[in-house]
Amino acid sequence: MDDDSKNIQKKITPRAEDYSKWYSDVIDAADIADNSAVRGCMIIKPYGYALWEKIHTIFDEKFKKLGVSNAYFPLLIPQSFLAKEAKHVEGFAKEVAVVTHHRLESDGKGGLKPAGELSDPLIIRPTSETIIYDAFSRWICSYRDLPLLINQWANVLRWEMRTRPFLRTTEFLWQEGHTAHRTSQEAAEFASKIINEYKDFVEQDMALPVIAGYKSESERFAGADQTLCIEAMMQDGKALQAGTSHMLGQNFAKAFNVSFTDEKGKPNFAWQTSWGVSTRLIGALIMAHSDDKGLVLPPKMASISAVVVPVGQGTAEYDNVLKYAKEFAQRLESETGLAVKFDDRELRSGEKYFYWEKRGVPVRIEIGPRDLAKKSVVYVRRDNGQKSFVAEADAAIKLKELLADIQTSLFEKAAKFRKDNLRPVDSWGDFKQTIDAKPGFIKAHWCGGAECEAKIKEETMATIRCIPFDVEAEAGKCVFCGKKSNNRVIFAKAY
Amino acid sequence: MDDDSKNIQKKITPRAEDYSKWYSDVIDAADIADNSAVRGCMIIKPYGYALWEKIHTIFDEKFKKLGVSNAYFPLLIPQSFLAKEAKHVEGFAKEVAVVTHHRLESDGKGGLKPAGELSDPLIIRPTSETIIYDAFSRWICSYRDLPLLINQWANVLRWEMRTRPFLRTTEFLWQEGHTAHRTSQEAAEFASKIINEYKDFVEQDMALPVIAGYKSESERFAGADQTLCIEAMMQDGKALQAGTSHMLGQNFAKAFNVSFTDEKGKPNFAWQTSWGVSTRLIGALIMAHSDDKGLVLPPKMASISAVVVPVGQGTAEYDNVLKYAKEFAQRLESETGLAVKFDDRELRSGEKYFYWEKRGVPVRIEIGPRDLAKKSVVYVRRDNGQKSFVAEADAAIKLKELLADIQTSLFEKAAKFRKDNLRPVDSWGDFKQTIDAKPGFIKAHWCGGAECEAKIKEETMATIRCIPFDVEAEAGKCVFCGKKSNNRVIFAKAY
Repeated sequence: MDDDSKNIQKKITPRAEDYSKWYSDVIDAADIADNSAVRGCMIIKPYGYALWEKIHTIFDEKFKKLGVSNAYFPLLIPQSFLAKEAKHVEGFAKEVAVVTHHRLESDGKGGLKPAGELSDPLIIRPTSETIIYDAFSRWICSYRDLPLLINQWANVLRWEMRTRPFLRTTEFLWQEGHTAHRTSQEAAEFASKIINEYKDFVEQDMALPVIAGYKSESERFAGADQTLCIEAMMQDGKALQAGTSHMLGQNFAKAFNVSFTDEKGKPNFAWQTSWGVSTRLIGALIMAHSDDKGLVLPPKMASISAVVVPVGQGTAEYDNVLKYAKEFAQRLESETGLAVKFDDRELRSGEKYFYWEKRGVPVRIEIGPRDLAKKSVVYVRRDNGQKSFVAEADAAIKLKELLADIQTSLFEKAAKFRKDNLRPVDSWGDFKQTIDAKPGFIKAHWCGGAECEAKIKEETMATIRCIPFDVEAEAGKCVFCGKKSNNRVIFAKAY
Repeated sequence: MDDDSKNIQKKITPRAEDYSKWYSDVIDAADIADNSAVRGCMIIKPYGYALWEKIHTIFDEKFKKLGVSNAYFPLLIPQSFLAKEAKHVEGFAKEVAVVTHHRLESDGKGGLKPAGELSDPLIIRPTSETIIYDAFSRWICSYRDLPLLINQWANVLRWEMRTRPFLRTTEFLWQEGHTAHRTSQEAAEFASKIINEYKDFVEQDMALPVIAGYKSESERFAGADQTLCIEAMMQDGKALQAGTSHMLGQNFAKAFNVSFTDEKGKPNFAWQTSWGVSTRLIGALIMAHSDDKGLVLPPKMASISAVVVPVGQGTAEYDNVLKYAKEFAQRLESETGLAVKFDDRELRSGEKYFYWEKRGVPVRIEIGPRDLAKKSVVYVRRDNGQKSFVAEADAAIKLKELLADIQTSLFEKAAKFRKDNLRPVDSWGDFKQTIDAKPGFIKAHWCGGAECEAKIKEETMATIRCIPFDVEAEAGKCVFCGKKSNNRVIFAKAY
């Protein structure tokens, strides 16, 4: 789609002016998503969907290496299933779409009305523990059927009150993994393995550092014994939960009778895990690196690695430039195996620069009449605007080096930002002042009590993001109540 | 999952005894799908989902080569959208799931009831023309935005009265392509290109010959000007529509205002196509080649190409056999790049043969003590049971040759069956007798009238499957009314 006419002039609101408006401007300008006629549901446009395809491909391979198989379970779930696990229903009943009819008929006024009422209403899955574990209860008989490691790529729906593209939408795409094991330890180890895979992807591919840790009891998944998470810091200092892996214990196994006979013929309930990442990762990716000119993509996530822009329109040599630039782009693509786009549209080169800048393509390659003569080209980095002159013979190797460097730079920049905005705080006064005055995370002592946690949230909007896995033992006092604490936890306002 | 205990003894009903029962027995025995607690919705188990992953991968590459981009649109559609195209709503209103509430609350009797009624009910997409073309109307402004070529991999839902795994399920997975073009001719050419891609896949990869052609007006997609289809013959002689590509003309463009200004600044409605294949293809695949022993998979669709079974349990050499067989399997896999499974479970080899036979793995490789001594192995074809002795040095090349031969044999067998069961019929008496007495397709003259078509369907259950693209001109008389006809069309009972 050629949408220059519509987008090229559109200005992106600077972050400093309105961070939230900046975020949606970046999405618009990069042609990533569109609103739909349905409340809270967005359309993921091709350039945005390409990001999801990357995420899908990379994780699918990771999961399969762990022995996980893909399967597919029904979209609709009997409402009675939801109620089988007490905390689960409490967590989800308030936000599920309910199907009550199975056809439409004329309302006699030229419109339509629902007809064919169902005796048992169905809900659209907000997550699939219940319908999947109902199947597990049939599939698992003996210890030989374990571990059972299943993943599903699917859409889910949660009726959110306030929505925002990718970060919180009524419908979203995700993967949900569901496993059953013989022992608590094996399940816990698997849940850990997964959170490590998530961390590895977000840090290595998305160039975004995360803190991995445990959720406090109040922040756990509805029905889990333990929730492991990774938390990233956005450019406004807020936290974004990028992935979760839940140790479900035997809670669902008992509710759905997921049981097996062990080696001695003794019946047991299985130990389970569930885990997921969603299109929310795209929101994190956009927020993490983009700037006031638009999207910035880490090279490993970019569907177009470099764009070749011929310059010098109107000069006598432009036909030669076009011919050379086209061949250059093709050669570069075949030599590097990367996606190199050649932009020969009839637009001024400045417009093209702007166009690809907004789309976050990591490297722009300019080729003009003078470059032609010198057998060299100009590489321009999207992340910092740096230009370098590259001899034609070095084009492939230099592009690879530059992309690797951009990937590292983006991670380091994000890591530095997080380091600069992760503050130890030791008194309640400081806590309140810091959370209001400065963006970022707070490391503070907490007694472990749900009451303190709730009051802190009430007064400051900050929640416990996690208790980091690598937390150092440190004697201290709860920042709110002053009771004894053995380590600091991470507090922040969150998306 | 190790489900030997449950499945290994299960007998498959022979086709001749009960074709329909045979079909579901094959699915059970191969561990492809499972029923769910939700009416008409099945669970696709890992071994069945692997087939969908093949279909997905192959088509995704084909579509991208044609310049089609993937995107994602909302699951839920305002009910008013459906009504915008008159024939479309007529075709789908009777079978849509309607969402009327957005939460559940206690019913005061220990159960739950729907709450939070929506002022405008939403339907779950039965297909996405309406929601996608609403977006197209915003995305398309000028001729430079065309062609717009979009595809979506998604789940859809149609409230079917009678369901059968894969062939007709309330929810199914599919791809739906949606395109917009400047001219009628360009759209028609694109719709043709797609049906050719479908034919190519089903014939080359699924080893199943199809007849490509036009649908009669009564059998067209609700809202289309023309529907192109591919029709396959199942082993019971019934037809199965395996894919459709619709020329939508300007019907939806007018209903949703998908318009563009042409080179001269004149406004125009776009010409559109939509096209899809679904998990129904898996049903066709199962029905096409399987036999009374279970699933038979053409090698190009098999997620496991060959299985190595060590034989001679209990003999002194068995440890050596195990060691050798394992190395053999690994070497064969790395040399061929194919998936070669090594089955070292503690089961009798006969049980293992049966296990993999039911799952349709194309080649079984037996290795016993005598083979070890002779440095040779035994290859057994799943399709016809033929055994061959293969020298270790030839293992890789022979496996590739054998798989290619199985692929061709399966296609030829299916092509012969179709040829033998495609009968020209010239009188109404013969038609009625043939359709009742013999399985298969009938080639008969038809006047082109919807009335004759309807009466033929009423009396015989046979429908016009298609008017083949390559139909020969032949003067004749309508088999029902005797009016003039210029060519024969294909009639059959259909799934």
